[in-house]
Amino acid sequence: MSSSTSNLIALAMGVAIALSVPTDADAQSAPLSAQDSDPNVMGWMQGFPPPEDKIITQPDSVYFSFPRLRWSVCHLREFLPTKEISRGLGAPIPLIYPSPSDFADMRAEIDAVTFTPQNSNEEMTWEESLYANYTDGMLILHKGEVVYERYFGCLEEDGKHAIMSMTKSFTGLLAEIMVVEGALDDTALVRDIIPEIGDSAFATATVRQVMDMTTGVKYSEDYSDPNADIWLYSRAASPLPKPENYEGPDGYWEYLQQVEPEGNHGDEFHYKTINSDMLGWIISRVSGKAVTELAAERLWRRMGVEQDAYQTVDGTGVPFAGGGITAGLRDLARLGHLMLNEGELNGERLFPAEVVANISDGGDQSKFSGFSTIPDGSYTSQWWVFHNDHGAYAARGVHGQTIYVDPTAEMVLVRLASYPRAQNGFIDPTSLPAYQSVAEFLMSRN
Amino acid sequence: MSSSTSNLIALAMGVAIALSVPTDADAQSAPLSAQDSDPNVMGWMQGFPPPEDKIITQPDSVYFSFPRLRWSVCHLREFLPTKEISRGLGAPIPLIYPSPSDFADMRAEIDAVTFTPQNSNEEMTWEESLYANYTDGMLILHKGEVVYERYFGCLEEDGKHAIMSMTKSFTGLLAEIMVVEGALDDTALVRDIIPEIGDSAFATATVRQVMDMTTGVKYSEDYSDPNADIWLYSRAASPLPKPENYEGPDGYWEYLQQVEPEGNHGDEFHYKTINSDMLGWIISRVSGKAVTELAAERLWRRMGVEQDAYQTVDGTGVPFAGGGITAGLRDLARLGHLMLNEGELNGERLFPAEVVANISDGGDQSKFSGFSTIPDGSYTSQWWVFHNDHGAYAARGVHGQTIYVDPTAEMVLVRLASYPRAQNGFIDPTSLPAYQSVAEFLMSRN
Repeated sequence: MSSSTSNLIALAMGVAIALSVPTDADAQSAPLSAQDSDPNVMGWMQGFPPPEDKIITQPDSVYFSFPRLRWSVCHLREFLPTKEISRGLGAPIPLIYPSPSDFADMRAEIDAVTFTPQNSNEEMTWEESLYANYTDGMLILHKGEVVYERYFGCLEEDGKHAIMSMTKSFTGLLAEIMVVEGALDDTALVRDIIPEIGDSAFATATVRQVMDMTTGVKYSEDYSDPNADIWLYSRAASPLPKPENYEGPDGYWEYLQQVEPEGNHGDEFHYKTINSDMLGWIISRVSGKAVTELAAERLWRRMGVEQDAYQTVDGTGVPFAGGGITAGLRDLARLGHLMLNEGELNGERLFPAEVVANISDGGDQSKFSGFSTIPDGSYTSQWWVFHNDHGAYAARGVHGQTIYVDPTAEMVLVRLASYPRAQNGFIDPTSLPAYQSVAEFLMSRN
Repeated sequence: MSSSTSNLIALAMGVAIALSVPTDADAQSAPLSAQDSDPNVMGWMQGFPPPEDKIITQPDSVYFSFPRLRWSVCHLREFLPTKEISRGLGAPIPLIYPSPSDFADMRAEIDAVTFTPQNSNEEMTWEESLYANYTDGMLILHKGEVVYERYFGCLEEDGKHAIMSMTKSFTGLLAEIMVVEGALDDTALVRDIIPEIGDSAFATATVRQVMDMTTGVKYSEDYSDPNADIWLYSRAASPLPKPENYEGPDGYWEYLQQVEPEGNHGDEFHYKTINSDMLGWIISRVSGKAVTELAAERLWRRMGVEQDAYQTVDGTGVPFAGGGITAGLRDLARLGHLMLNEGELNGERLFPAEVVANISDGGDQSKFSGFSTIPDGSYTSQWWVFHNDHGAYAARGVHGQTIYVDPTAEMVLVRLASYPRAQNGFIDPTSLPAYQSVAEFLMSRN
């Protein structure tokens, strides 16, 4: 099985792949372009029924392999059981737009913004980067106003898109709110909150180490090794009925109870999704609420969002706190705006400003390494902090999804995407410098 | 396997059971009462994780067996893949309520309304009937105003509930709209619209025969017979990956292509769910849209509803047109109100009045038999017509769900329920006379 196929299977089983550095072998194969792999061009699932070779079905190795994944990222609920993140029953609060002509002018100006990709000498325009990156949706807010909004591929303005590991930042934000509000002690040990964690390596980690992914826990994602932890995790997480002879853990939480140690807690940042699931369990135990319910109660019902979001679940009904959310582009922009505004939205305070300060200040950079596209970064409360001169920070998903908050430029940028490979190492070089250039462009305008 | 267990398995596989007359054996076993089987009393799925004996999981024989089904009817998406029926992005249009004190008075008055159940000499109050019937939600509109609204069991005002065979009435209404608007010829043969129906018994039926379930098609629901069609249908409809040695039809539409004849088209009404799936295919082929998309476009996006609805899908992504919808109580009341108002809602005409007239006039009573609780009834365009002195008609689901429209009383009543047995023959005796009594009460008040 090829590495990328295995990655995709694992992903579809509900597992978010670690951001990793592309290998030479990966770089050699050239997938279809964004335009050629557009699901509407490919003709997936059109007709009643679609032609046989255009039907996308189970198993996950089919529906979540490129180019099919470009359709499936907008349709995960059609393959998997899910829980709702309810917006409640009230009226949405519309985003603010410039006049149509100003909006069109702004789009043209932004499309023409140029930048130099990482590891390259050739300039690229903003618009070119959207195709280079297999973008499905892009929305930019500047000083609270929508200055750019485009949809591609499977996504439309009333559609939704899988955000994969950006889900972690929902989980981390909810945890950080509970910490600042005093409901959760981030110096507590996991075993003091969840006694049945037993002998798991997580038992002796602090909540903060889980939040910042500095735990010393074994979790191998070597896809060529049939005994790698990723496979055990995938089988545990699958919502399909377990095979009769199955003896492994059932669901995320049983998996977490048998994690072995690797290294020391607190020593180093290691991007391992199981920390997010551990954190999801912690905040559910402490609050008495599922992460979907917490997200609805603390965020979605109070943000004036337009659409319910949803989250995939394992076979015991536990939402995938490390990667399971699907949501609308504009609603994710509302979340970014809430972060930029330090916890206030539509004139209402949703949580203390300290929550955002704790995140945007970043984690311990000395413990952060291994991400060549973010050399000075850190990771805290499940958010990526760039430590650049704009103080930017982000939620990031494995196919190029992001909520990118630039406090200096007063810019929030949301990107939904379906990059063929599950590796931000490929995606960042044409993304991060582009975001910086657009931020500078917006700052130059007023 | 007991008959009721098998029924429930089949149901959960996505099959709606025919309304049937209770047997003596069924009547002898006494399930837990509505109060004792309330999911909150039972403690299903409470805690993180819930106690082992309180977790509801796959397979369907677990999650959709009583008393667990009383929880699962509000949580189907957590077990099955689904497609959204989108409400769009606008603001909901609130229902109209009396003042809180008038509303409370009205509730007390309606709760005290009495009636005599079918086949009984003992009076029962309206409120007693709600428990006798395992009601999860009840809303009554009178002259467009909410006069009664209560939630029980798993349902809350921002929750949703499986409506099972009421789904058929969505499918039938969409078809009737297309017929009246001239997009669908109900005298056409199925094979002229869907050539690949091939030698199926459906090939030579007219669209109208499919709409009214007067086709002559073989579809046995003898659960004690392992070769009964219901099992083949269930396996075809299951969204789980097919077993490796599986050679049967995949999905609803492949199933329909191999249906055998039984009797003559047009002779008699036979309540067989496969007609609804055939109709779903027909309207999707003619419109080029999935039934979920049609329901959104013609109904949900234009009705000012509060919540998206959703519909379960088979393994090829085809929505279950015969039973797959889950929706909110108030939104279903909006649909009933749209019917009562003959196609107009919130000052907008959604479809011609003729659509409702065609339905409320009913089907051919001489072809209707076998339903002892509806002796004078008929079935047309997938709606039940009572031919009573109020001209009432209804959408009906197998665990007691209904949208009941009484044009004479200007009353719309929506009931969501999780009656232990999948047979309206048990439920109607304490429901239909109760609806009539409430209608008369409302008429007497002004």
